[in-house]
Amino acid sequence: MTTFKELQAKYTPLINDFLEKQLYGETNDQKIAEIMAYSVMAGGKRLRPLLFLATLDSLGREIGESELRIACGIELIHTYSLIHDDLPAMDNDDYRRGRLTSHKKWGEAEAILAGDALLPLGIKWIAQGSRSYELAEIITEAVGPNGMVGGQYLDIDSTNNAAVANDAEFINRMEWLKTGCLILASVEMATVYGQAPSGVKEKYLAFAKHFGRAYQIYDDLVDVVESQEEAGKATHKDQEVGKNNTLTMLGVDETRNDLRHLIKQAQGDLTGESAEALLGFLDLYQKVL
Amino acid sequence: MTTFKELQAKYTPLINDFLEKQLYGETNDQKIAEIMAYSVMAGGKRLRPLLFLATLDSLGREIGESELRIACGIELIHTYSLIHDDLPAMDNDDYRRGRLTSHKKWGEAEAILAGDALLPLGIKWIAQGSRSYELAEIITEAVGPNGMVGGQYLDIDSTNNAAVANDAEFINRMEWLKTGCLILASVEMATVYGQAPSGVKEKYLAFAKHFGRAYQIYDDLVDVVESQEEAGKATHKDQEVGKNNTLTMLGVDETRNDLRHLIKQAQGDLTGESAEALLGFLDLYQKVL
Repeated sequence: MTTFKELQAKYTPLINDFLEKQLYGETNDQKIAEIMAYSVMAGGKRLRPLLFLATLDSLGREIGESELRIACGIELIHTYSLIHDDLPAMDNDDYRRGRLTSHKKWGEAEAILAGDALLPLGIKWIAQGSRSYELAEIITEAVGPNGMVGGQYLDIDSTNNAAVANDAEFINRMEWLKTGCLILASVEMATVYGQAPSGVKEKYLAFAKHFGRAYQIYDDLVDVVESQEEAGKATHKDQEVGKNNTLTMLGVDETRNDLRHLIKQAQGDLTGESAEALLGFLDLYQKVL
Repeated sequence: MTTFKELQAKYTPLINDFLEKQLYGETNDQKIAEIMAYSVMAGGKRLRPLLFLATLDSLGREIGESELRIACGIELIHTYSLIHDDLPAMDNDDYRRGRLTSHKKWGEAEAILAGDALLPLGIKWIAQGSRSYELAEIITEAVGPNGMVGGQYLDIDSTNNAAVANDAEFINRMEWLKTGCLILASVEMATVYGQAPSGVKEKYLAFAKHFGRAYQIYDDLVDVVESQEEAGKATHKDQEVGKNNTLTMLGVDETRNDLRHLIKQAQGDLTGESAEALLGFLDLYQKVL
């Protein structure tokens, strides 16, 4: 059985190599490839592709070129969402992953187009790697109006809106859509692709839901706990710009309690499964506890 | 055999009904549905979905709910591209299809997100309707960095760039990527979905290539021939803002000759096929000749 650390050590470089090589190799215009690669290769944790691969590994499936292609497709889509979230009309951020954001580096039109290019390319890699229209359905549902983009819309719509500042249900829904849906989809695609029996699939999806909810809370805590240098982006910013999230609603201590509780639930979801690699993802959250 | 007029008269209302009903019915947040529907229901010609359906009809295939879903998915994707092309950072247009553009009506963040929602939703409808990962591959390739977005990037990059003003190869490539790729994909998806034999498929693809090339030239001619009221968007604008296209390179008379030649080639491509509905699309171009 693979541990999280082993999986991470083995596949992070393979993911990075695949991303860089295929972005340049499969794009006719090398300038567009460079603009896409600038953001994709800025050194993210590759959390979502690793989640996909860890789920496959826990299900006892082999990981080869096709599985890497699907995993990397998810990362392209995640990167697109970061580029568009940072745009002047959205969060207007200057730094991301320790570098100038795409629009600061290349211009606003170029950044919009880099995102517009990464999204279909990511979906294409998922369709190609899986040869499954079901995976194409899962990913497009997760990032569409009922998923990630819906959450970003609620975020934009609610910023500086005092009426929702203490509306826990609204904030949970917004955060789930923004971040949770893509995390859930990464695990769900692996259970479908890996043909998990339905009882097993349910356990993994329950884990993914708790893990995904925890991730957004973790991300909010990073905003107050880490310095800008550590996080690679502007921190201590949410409250300043009038963002409503779990943290601004509950404060640091209660938010940490929420996170601890979610971690326990996620651990419980996988009881009886030999899913060590997947459970190891929860250690990520220790640094803000 | 269905004529183009019959097909258009029968399916345009069905397409419009499907789009409106499903956009609201399948979107949880009705405000996001409204923002998407505002642009989708602004009264386009539904050219690309009709091309998909006309190809199926010419191949002798039945058209039902699934085929409509695929056709309408193409229209969602086309609408996304219009919304993003109109953004302040891109062409900065105030009017489209006779209405305020999405960002003028709803705000810039909302317009970016409406496009970001329509793209995956359109791909989802295509995957759902076809239950084919191959169609998902075709459409994502057509609108990605080697297709539509690549063309838009070249357009942005070359505006006011005198070095490419007379570079026919560059301009052909840019226009093909921007407009031709999605038109070709609409026909190609129908040949794959409709299981056209390979010799037949080749004829349809040849037609789609000539038709798609002609369409961009037609669109440029509309810019000078039609008044703003007729076109529903700003016209006489390309030359003003330093756009390079076939028309600015060749002038009106030579461009018209090009268009006539392409129409003849497209007609020739389908010799021997009973593809009356598809050939009827070429009549569209008469109004600028």
